[in-house]
Amino acid sequence: MTESPASVKVGLLGCGIVGSALVHLLAERADAIEAAAGVRLEVSAIAVRSTSRDRGAGIDPALLTADARGLVVDDDVDLVVEVIGGIEPARELILAALAAGKPVVTANKELLANCGAELYAAADAARVDLLFEAAAAAAIPIVRPLRESLIGEDIRRVMGIVNGTTNFILTKMTEEGSSYSDALAEAQELGFAERDPTADVEGFDAGAKAAIMASIAFGSRVVAGDVYHEGISQVTAADIDFANRLGYQIKLLAIAEVFDGDEREIGVRVHPAMVPNAHPLASVRGSFNAVFVEGVDAGELMFYGRGAGGRPTASAVLGDVIDAAINLTRSTHRTVPGANSTDAASIRAIDDLESAYYVNLEVVDSPGVLSTVSGVFGQHGVSIRSMEQEGLDDEARLVFVTHRAVERNLQATLQDLRQLDVVNGVRSVMRVVS
Amino acid sequence: MTESPASVKVGLLGCGIVGSALVHLLAERADAIEAAAGVRLEVSAIAVRSTSRDRGAGIDPALLTADARGLVVDDDVDLVVEVIGGIEPARELILAALAAGKPVVTANKELLANCGAELYAAADAARVDLLFEAAAAAAIPIVRPLRESLIGEDIRRVMGIVNGTTNFILTKMTEEGSSYSDALAEAQELGFAERDPTADVEGFDAGAKAAIMASIAFGSRVVAGDVYHEGISQVTAADIDFANRLGYQIKLLAIAEVFDGDEREIGVRVHPAMVPNAHPLASVRGSFNAVFVEGVDAGELMFYGRGAGGRPTASAVLGDVIDAAINLTRSTHRTVPGANSTDAASIRAIDDLESAYYVNLEVVDSPGVLSTVSGVFGQHGVSIRSMEQEGLDDEARLVFVTHRAVERNLQATLQDLRQLDVVNGVRSVMRVVS
Repeated sequence: MTESPASVKVGLLGCGIVGSALVHLLAERADAIEAAAGVRLEVSAIAVRSTSRDRGAGIDPALLTADARGLVVDDDVDLVVEVIGGIEPARELILAALAAGKPVVTANKELLANCGAELYAAADAARVDLLFEAAAAAAIPIVRPLRESLIGEDIRRVMGIVNGTTNFILTKMTEEGSSYSDALAEAQELGFAERDPTADVEGFDAGAKAAIMASIAFGSRVVAGDVYHEGISQVTAADIDFANRLGYQIKLLAIAEVFDGDEREIGVRVHPAMVPNAHPLASVRGSFNAVFVEGVDAGELMFYGRGAGGRPTASAVLGDVIDAAINLTRSTHRTVPGANSTDAASIRAIDDLESAYYVNLEVVDSPGVLSTVSGVFGQHGVSIRSMEQEGLDDEARLVFVTHRAVERNLQATLQDLRQLDVVNGVRSVMRVVS
Repeated sequence: MTESPASVKVGLLGCGIVGSALVHLLAERADAIEAAAGVRLEVSAIAVRSTSRDRGAGIDPALLTADARGLVVDDDVDLVVEVIGGIEPARELILAALAAGKPVVTANKELLANCGAELYAAADAARVDLLFEAAAAAAIPIVRPLRESLIGEDIRRVMGIVNGTTNFILTKMTEEGSSYSDALAEAQELGFAERDPTADVEGFDAGAKAAIMASIAFGSRVVAGDVYHEGISQVTAADIDFANRLGYQIKLLAIAEVFDGDEREIGVRVHPAMVPNAHPLASVRGSFNAVFVEGVDAGELMFYGRGAGGRPTASAVLGDVIDAAINLTRSTHRTVPGANSTDAASIRAIDDLESAYYVNLEVVDSPGVLSTVSGVFGQHGVSIRSMEQEGLDDEARLVFVTHRAVERNLQATLQDLRQLDVVNGVRSVMRVVS
């Protein structure tokens, strides 16, 4: 193996927003990359659906091919970058590339969240790299820190704002008092939200990222289907107003936790939550993302940046391409922690997970109501941390924040509260980060 | 090379707070590390000054030796961890270990900020790892992201709160209205500040970290002596109060920037600065640290966490030890970007650097003063972004925030302002992050 500038030929699967940004970056930075990393990168082939469509300056039409299956085994391709997205044919192409001994860099969160274990094992068996920094939070370096810097750390919880669309919407609602639907419409106009926003606003995108981060952080096999989801479409301007008055910001959080015990369990969920203003996640605004990591020794860490976008995503892909290219020239590769764990993680059901809760009740304005209501919390072992009461026209509002309680106990409390004559309605309920 | 669990014997130079925390971590986590990384780590020798002193449970006295020079070339040591600090004998021992083909992990910021280039080149020549995550910001993964994730990124600026002592003091002054001396005394009582706090409060510690980060981020040789310093001992409660009223937090920042042109120049400095409340660095409180990185494609990134402390620092060292151990078993190593650049970076002098500025003047309360004063700014090409005037007893206060201006022009402006009869005094001047 030589360490003098080696040339590594990159084959690209897909040439959309991220792919074309990557081709431009590879051309612009070739000299700087060679100086810093000792490898010369060049794009040798690009597989696309239509080879006849003009792709603008910088994309050499001679590199285009419709034969993706041919590309991944081509001797003229040393390293494969997959940016087509979706499960098939991406999965099959990546497996073929790995089997051919070619390192693969992918930004495909859907694929990794569903078939990650199969791909990690295939890379491990082929002794080549499978790198995917861009799949978790685009430009934010989080996969490499979790895989490498924190490989010896006892990580207990990973908690992230990992969807820019929903954070943009919640920030608009908070800072400008917009309604959910107005903020969503604005996000769509600005290109921060898709025409069908379901994947973002219902938490599926964040859920895929949560599964990937849980897998790496805990070295266990966690898939998208393991993730409990609640989206932000039910969050109202009034909820945000209440949260702000109590000193909280509402954020859509992806949370992965590990629980020791007779059996090691992992909890993984996406839902809106109230984050105290002093918490570092509270000040993550607009389309920015951040991942907060809690370790036994490292303490609290946070990684912040752009979680989406063509060039930020391409930048993360480029870092992986250079890393894989260096490893290739040295005949080595990285290990994915837990790549060999074939057992699925034992998932703790949402009913058994704990959180603090915010509960906002409309009650009749008469003596003894607080005692009755707080008695119901007590019967279910839900301990109240704070309460505020305010008069409404002819009723009253009680706003509780509880200590950490088990979800099923909180749900049982709510069910009983709804039966009470003195309770006119449960106005809203939200988990609180403690 | 086998990838089945290989045993790697770790020799430790020093067994103070970080060293002993590392020994405990290596023992506690040995099985988990083997499962995740495929290497078995064991401490085989610990060099200390006094081998007779009792070092408490978990430190096997049989491993202690006073012969540090012997340890680094001992066949029973595969990998060396240096946590003694200071320049000599650490430098000499690390060079000897590298020459003997042993990877080295160090947390020694003083050494790297002064002799980094020599050590990086020695590691490169010996083709072994020299890893130093803990030297920049302890538990915060910043060196690995800069060296690897962002190796292909065009980084323009790195800006950090990298000293916990000063951030603790400034937070106390901000949140509790403490004076500088009371906040310093409290930091000393809590163990966040040394009895002689000079290295922290005058910005030398932050300067060393700035030099290390600049070297990696820009692939150039930047040393501690290149860094311009101003500390926080001149910051008053009144400055903080004014800053807060204008929507800023005062933070001690380490800033490294790169400037293209006929010759590539690097600016690197440590000084207090006013950070807008909406900036992610503004909400970094107490003894926490954070590093904000701006890249052309990745955009804005921030890395947040504990920048000091025994276990957080040991956690970062452990991540490096595992990484180096994996590389060792695979006969590979990492490259430090720019390790082969033997030329010192061209440093742009502080007089030529740009910043926005806050200028607080006490002036006589008479017509025409604002026009006279603002005329002086204009003569030196310093453009005013905002001005606020407030009446004092028999004088007035003018508070200016300028657009970005060159330091020498701002200094010339101040010199002329001090000559004016209508100016009773320049109350304070501070750089503003824009």
